[in-house]
Amino acid sequence: MKLVPIEAKSKSYNVYIEARIRHKVGQLLEEIVTEAFSSIFVITDSVVAPLYLNDVVGSFQNKLPIYTEVIPSGESSKSFATYEQVMTKALECGLDRKSVIVALGGGVVGDLAGFVASTYMRGIRFVQVPTTLLAHDSSVGGKVAINHALGKNMVGSFHQPDAVFYDPETLYSLPEREWRSGFAEVIKHGFIRNQDFLQWLQGEVKSFDQLPVEQVINLLERSLAVKANIVAEDERESGVRAYLNFGHTLGHAIESELGYGAITHGEAVAIGMIFALKLSETMFEIDLHVKQHENWFQRLGYKTTIPNKLNVNKLIGKMQSDKKAEAGSIRMVLLQGMEKATMLEIPPSMIEQLIAEQMEVDDVG
Amino acid sequence: MKLVPIEAKSKSYNVYIEARIRHKVGQLLEEIVTEAFSSIFVITDSVVAPLYLNDVVGSFQNKLPIYTEVIPSGESSKSFATYEQVMTKALECGLDRKSVIVALGGGVVGDLAGFVASTYMRGIRFVQVPTTLLAHDSSVGGKVAINHALGKNMVGSFHQPDAVFYDPETLYSLPEREWRSGFAEVIKHGFIRNQDFLQWLQGEVKSFDQLPVEQVINLLERSLAVKANIVAEDERESGVRAYLNFGHTLGHAIESELGYGAITHGEAVAIGMIFALKLSETMFEIDLHVKQHENWFQRLGYKTTIPNKLNVNKLIGKMQSDKKAEAGSIRMVLLQGMEKATMLEIPPSMIEQLIAEQMEVDDVG
Ligand SMILES: NC(=O)c1ccc[n+]([C@@H]2O[C@H](COP(=O)([O-])OP(=O)(O)OC[C@H]3O[C@@H](n4cnc5c(N)ncnc54)[C@H](O)[C@@H]3O)[C@@H](O)[C@H]2O)c1
Ligand SMILES: NC(=O)c1ccc[n+]([C@@H]2O[C@H](COP(=O)([O-])OP(=O)(O)OC[C@H]3O[C@@H](n4cnc5c(N)ncnc54)[C@H](O)[C@@H]3O)[C@@H](O)[C@H]2O)c1
Repeated sequence: MKLVPIEAKSKSYNVYIEARIRHKVGQLLEEIVTEAFSSIFVITDSVVAPLYLNDVVGSFQNKLPIYTEVIPSGESSKSFATYEQVMTKALECGLDRKSVIVALGGGVVGDLAGFVASTYMRGIRFVQVPTTLLAHDSSVGGKVAINHALGKNMVGSFHQPDAVFYDPETLYSLPEREWRSGFAEVIKHGFIRNQDFLQWLQGEVKSFDQLPVEQVINLLERSLAVKANIVAEDERESGVRAYLNFGHTLGHAIESELGYGAITHGEAVAIGMIFALKLSETMFEIDLHVKQHENWFQRLGYKTTIPNKLNVNKLIGKMQSDKKAEAGSIRMVLLQGMEKATMLEIPPSMIEQLIAEQMEVDDVG
Repeated sequence: MKLVPIEAKSKSYNVYIEARIRHKVGQLLEEIVTEAFSSIFVITDSVVAPLYLNDVVGSFQNKLPIYTEVIPSGESSKSFATYEQVMTKALECGLDRKSVIVALGGGVVGDLAGFVASTYMRGIRFVQVPTTLLAHDSSVGGKVAINHALGKNMVGSFHQPDAVFYDPETLYSLPEREWRSGFAEVIKHGFIRNQDFLQWLQGEVKSFDQLPVEQVINLLERSLAVKANIVAEDERESGVRAYLNFGHTLGHAIESELGYGAITHGEAVAIGMIFALKLSETMFEIDLHVKQHENWFQRLGYKTTIPNKLNVNKLIGKMQSDKKAEAGSIRMVLLQGMEKATMLEIPPSMIEQLIAEQMEVDDVG
C-alpha cells in the first residue's frame, strides 16, 4: 500500500493507494480513526453506485448502522436542492455527531458530500473514496462546495477528510474523456511544481489506453505529492495554494460560457494552461516550448484552441468575476519558468488579444 | 466603552458595548480589521431595518460599496430558502473574498448571516451588531446555523465574527417578551458559572421595565464574560461548552413540540431550567432552592410549568434526538451545586415522571 501524508494546518491525514482497497474501507477506517463512530452514511452517484457501492458497504461487515444515498451523476448535483435533500436523508437516518460520511465517487460526490459533512450539525467527519482521476485532486485539501447559478463552487467551506482511500482499479471503468479531464490536473501539478514528473509523464503517457495499474499508482502518488506539498504550505489559499489555479481562470470561463457538461473541467483547463503558457512567454519574454506541450496535449486528445462560438468579451467578463478576482481585475497564475508559478494582474486588453489568437479557426476546406 | 475580549482557539475578537455605538460601526470596523475590506453587506430583518439600518449604513459614510438585504423577521428566516436567497443577493452584488458581512439584528439574523459568511466563497469575514438581549448569547462564540424541518440549527458551522458591536440603546425598542426570552440566557450564565451575578440579578431585576442603561450594560458585560470564559475553554463544544445547554434539552423539545413561535426560546429554556434544577436535586440529593428561583421566574413573567397540551412521550422522543444525544440516550446538563454543571445520561423513565409532575394543572375553579 502506498501512502501520501497530507499535513494541513488544521489536520493531518493520509491518502492510501492500493488496488482493491475499496473492499477494505470499513476495516481501515476502524484502524485509523481515533474516536469511535456511531454510524456510516455513504454518499455516491447513480453511475458509481452499481459499480462499487456494494464493495464499500460490504467492507463494513454490518458492524454498525450503515445508510446510503445515491445522487444523480453529474455536475448538476452540486446544487442547493441536492444539498438540502442529502441533509434531509441524513437527519431521517438519525446521523449524530459521531457519524462518518463516506464520499464514494468523483469530484462531484466529494465536493457535495464534503460540504454536507462540514455543515451537518456544524461538522462531522468524512472520508473520501475517489473513483475518478480528477478526484485525486479534489479529494485532498479540504475544499468542499456546491454551485450557484451565478458561479461554480461559490458556496462551500474548508473541511478536511479523515482519510482518503484510493483504489486505482476503479479508474478502469472510467470513460476516456474522464481520464482526459483528470489528467489535466496531473499535468498542471507537473508544470507548477515538478518538472521531472512532467517529463516522465510526457515519456510514459501517450494515450489513456492500457496504462498498467503500477503506472497509475505511480502517477497518482507523484501528483498527490505535489498537492500535499502545497496544501501543507497554505491550507486556506492565502498564498501558494492559488497556484493550483494555473490554467483555471480561462478554463472556468470556458466551462461556464459553454454551459457545464458541454466540456469537461480538465478539457477546459487544458485550453487554459496553453493560454497561460503563451501569456507567460509574452509577459516574461521566455521560451516555455508551448508548441511541444500543445502537440502532446493534442496527441492525448485535448483540444487546445478556444471554441469559436464563444464571445471574447463574455469570457473576459467571467474571468473578472472569478473568486480570486477583486473588483473587476483579472488575476492569473503564470509561469516565470518551469515550476516557477506566480500570480499576476493582467490588463484585459492583453488578454483580449491573446484569446483572439487562440480561437479555433473554422476549417473552410 | 466597555470591552469583553473573546479568546476562542481559532480567533480572538472583542465585544464592544456602548450606547449609540451603532452610529460608529463603520469607523470602528476600519480601526479594528487587520486586512482592508472591499465592500460591506448588511443583513437585517424587516422589524430592525426601519429602526436601525440607516444608522449603521450611515456610519460607513459612503466610503465604499455598501449593500443591504432585509429578511422577514422571525425564526422562519433561518431556512434553506432564505439562505439561498441571501447568497444570490451576495453574488449579484459582487461580494468578493474581502467583503465583510454585518449582521444587524437578533439571533435569527446573526445565525443566518453568520452561516452565509462562513460559506460564501468558502468563508468571508463578518461582524455582529446584536439588537436583542438574547443575541448577547448568540452573537458570541461563532455558532452559526439554519434550521431544518427535522430539527433546529441542524445545518451550520463554526465561524467567529471579527467583532461584536453592542448598542444597549437598541434594546429599548424590544417587546417585553423578547426581553424575557433573552434574560433566560442571562440567568443561565449565572446558574452554571457565576452565583454572585445570579444573586445580583435577583436583587436588581424585578421586572424588565425601565432598567437604566447603565444596569443593562453591566448585565451584558457580566453575562458575556461567562460566555467568553466558556468559549475560550472549549470553542468546538467537546467539553464545557455543552454546559451552555443547561435548560435547553427540555426547552428545545417544548419549543419544537409547540411549534416555533408559539413560545420564545427563552421562555422554553426557563421551563427547562426549572426542570433541570428539580432533576438535579433528585439526582444529587441536594437543595438548590428551586421554589425560590421559581418565584423569581414567575415574577418576571415566566411560566414554569410545562404546557399540558404537550405529550410526555413526544417530548421525550425529541429529547432523545437532540444534537447532543447519541443513539437514543438522553443527556442533560445538571447542577451538582451552584456553578457546578455536569453532563449526565438520564434514564427516560425518570424524566417521564418528573415531566408529569411539572405539567401545568388545569384551573378547574
Ligand atoms: N474540491 C477540490 O479541491 C476540487 C478540485 C478540482 C475539481 N473539483 C470539482 O470536482 C468536480 C469534477 O470531478 P469529476 O471530474 O470527478 O466529476 P464527477 O464526479 O462528475 O465524475 C465524472 C463522471 O464519471 C462518473 N464516474 C465516477 N467514477 C466512475 C468510475 N470509476 N467509473 C465510471 N464512471 C465513473 C461520474 O458518475 C460522472 O458521470 C467538479 O465539480 C469540480 O468543481 C473540486
Ligand atoms: N448562535 C448561537 O450561539 C445561539 C445561541 C442562542 C440562540 N441562538 C438563536 O437565536 C435565535 C433567537 O434569537 P432572538 O431571540 O434574538 O430572535 P430574533 O432575531 O427573531 O429577534 C426576536 C424578535 O425581535 C425583533 N427585534 C430584533 N431586534 C429588535 C429591536 N431592537 N427592537 C424591536 N424588535 C427587535 C426581531 O425582528 C424578532 O421579531 C434562535 O434562532 C436561536 O437558535 C443562537
